[in-house]
Amino acid sequence: MHNFSFQNPTRIVFGKDQLQQISKLIPPGSKVLLTYGGGSIKQNGVYQQVVQALDGFDWQEFSGIEPNPSFETLMRAADLVRREKIDFLLPVGGGSVIDGTKFVAAAAVFDGDAWDILAKGAKVKAALPLGCVLTLPATGTESNGNSVVTRYETQQKLSFSSPLVYPQFAILDPTVTFSLPPKQVANGVVDAFVHVIEQYLTYPVNAPLQDRFAEGILHTLIEEGPKALSQPDDYDVRANVMWAATMALNGLIGQGVPQDWATHMIGHEITALYGLDHAQTLAIVLPALLQQQRQGKRAKLLQFGQRVWQLQHQDEERLIDDAISHIRAFFEQMGVPTRLADYGIKADAVDKLVAALTSNGMLKLGEHGDITPEVSRQILQRAL
Amino acid sequence: MHNFSFQNPTRIVFGKDQLQQISKLIPPGSKVLLTYGGGSIKQNGVYQQVVQALDGFDWQEFSGIEPNPSFETLMRAADLVRREKIDFLLPVGGGSVIDGTKFVAAAAVFDGDAWDILAKGAKVKAALPLGCVLTLPATGTESNGNSVVTRYETQQKLSFSSPLVYPQFAILDPTVTFSLPPKQVANGVVDAFVHVIEQYLTYPVNAPLQDRFAEGILHTLIEEGPKALSQPDDYDVRANVMWAATMALNGLIGQGVPQDWATHMIGHEITALYGLDHAQTLAIVLPALLQQQRQGKRAKLLQFGQRVWQLQHQDEERLIDDAISHIRAFFEQMGVPTRLADYGIKADAVDKLVAALTSNGMLKLGEHGDITPEVSRQILQRAL
Repeated sequence: MHNFSFQNPTRIVFGKDQLQQISKLIPPGSKVLLTYGGGSIKQNGVYQQVVQALDGFDWQEFSGIEPNPSFETLMRAADLVRREKIDFLLPVGGGSVIDGTKFVAAAAVFDGDAWDILAKGAKVKAALPLGCVLTLPATGTESNGNSVVTRYETQQKLSFSSPLVYPQFAILDPTVTFSLPPKQVANGVVDAFVHVIEQYLTYPVNAPLQDRFAEGILHTLIEEGPKALSQPDDYDVRANVMWAATMALNGLIGQGVPQDWATHMIGHEITALYGLDHAQTLAIVLPALLQQQRQGKRAKLLQFGQRVWQLQHQDEERLIDDAISHIRAFFEQMGVPTRLADYGIKADAVDKLVAALTSNGMLKLGEHGDITPEVSRQILQRAL
Repeated sequence: MHNFSFQNPTRIVFGKDQLQQISKLIPPGSKVLLTYGGGSIKQNGVYQQVVQALDGFDWQEFSGIEPNPSFETLMRAADLVRREKIDFLLPVGGGSVIDGTKFVAAAAVFDGDAWDILAKGAKVKAALPLGCVLTLPATGTESNGNSVVTRYETQQKLSFSSPLVYPQFAILDPTVTFSLPPKQVANGVVDAFVHVIEQYLTYPVNAPLQDRFAEGILHTLIEEGPKALSQPDDYDVRANVMWAATMALNGLIGQGVPQDWATHMIGHEITALYGLDHAQTLAIVLPALLQQQRQGKRAKLLQFGQRVWQLQHQDEERLIDDAISHIRAFFEQMGVPTRLADYGIKADAVDKLVAALTSNGMLKLGEHGDITPEVSRQILQRAL
């Protein structure tokens, strides 16, 4: 096991009828900015519950944060925060709203051009406090310090991390996910699944507990994910998917072990250039990447096949092939196609994506740093 | 899954050569009290490393915190804290030193008779900050808000919990456990194992991820525990045991699920009256309790036998018997006997223990509240 330093300060408030807790969790006297996306929270009643819980606070709202939140929109929110002297941010939504609001939290008090936080890795030295209401289990952003933002004019999807943007609290009410469109449910399960794989399917470092936890989350997503589509009103199913997605990327399972994240980096370029949903890009890249990297990931691929999919072949090559096929089949079962062609993207995209990876500095990806742009090209060709 | 609210603010600093981090983790300018036990940290070099890391701080020390830390000793420490205007506590040791220092943190600033914190559940409204160095993986106290204290004059072993006594940081260096006596290693593994069982082996509430995490910790302890005895200098083994013991009782696996803790409550009385090590009492009580409660725990006992011990009998009664036998065999394999008689405690103890449980208010123990003193008697008789 590698050395590590880990702290996750977010309070998770999980369960039915918990939205009202907002009133106790936001520091009294705060000047609050409620942020959200396209307004689905007004249709499912979440907005009304949040507004009720904000009774007594001085609050305003900022809506229109897009899927793949845009730098441009978020800078408008940051201006509002400064102008109105907001001192607490309350994103209500999925990964995009929460990620975007984390960027607002940092950008509003950043000394200089806030784009540097994303483009140059400028250090975040201060951020406004935030607490969130999660409406879409997927990214884990509700209890981590990560944020991904897209600049539309330059087609760049970039990320930053800071301990200062961990939400102080995250309200996870599985009932608010009942009304999600099936596509978003499926995307969320795929996203969480790939988060686990990025931290698990590398090479062994004798960290059996991290492995067991990762496998436990994968088992849960495999068992509960399809039920979330077929039994959308089943509270326990929704609760289990929600908790699994949070645990997939709250930092815990990645402590002391190598991590990959090449699937995410390659996927980000597909979203930036072709507008696919984040999870769709992961579903495309992951099976191809695992085939390409099967030697370096050999020991973990075998363990994964045996423990997660209960494969027992003597032939190790066949076992690895089957393990990868099971992932592809699981994504397809969730309704998320796994080939570029399924989204109308043709072979000419490969050059463009490799050029984007190169210009964004993605030159040595993966747990061994051996995924050069040339290897990314081979992965993308396998994904056609 | 039940509703829950969970936050664990402790920073875990894990790995080799991490003791020096103390100097950065304690707030600058703090007036520090280093607390420890009987001096084993002077023999294994930990004391010297801590002293080196405290260079530049105004610090003092308080030693002599006993196994099963005594109220009397801890009140002397609290007096010292007040007298010397200490504002940061640094326990270096195992569960007793850290538990005891948590009580000091609360008692030193308590308004009234600090015994009420333990005896009357008086609310802890303030506590001094603390950070710890763990030398014995076992209790999980390094990242939770729990503390157990014994009053020798009245033979009472009582506990309190408060979010205010979570350590701000916990340094977990597996190398400091190399020199532990085998008995302490074994006790630690048994303690952590039973912590998981208390939160897992109750009744199903459709919380598959919590189950998988619990089973993952049990697997790790079963696989790594015996190696910690046979290969005491194996870093990875020590690291895996240490991380498993922390995860066993940092609150995570118990969120959203029923909990038992009757084995602990009955065990506490055995320690208070007969002086046995905490883990010894758990090893005695748990197999007897599971036999006694096998109907109420039936579904989880079957799952436990199948998943943790890979038992596959058709006959469910036999499977449950075997699952319990495997626990007993594991404890014995670790060198911890599982019968009262093994410690020279005879049948006349049962009345005394039941009387102690009754007078300490332990009238409805277990996840169903159905372990009355009369049921405790039957459990203790099974444990003779």
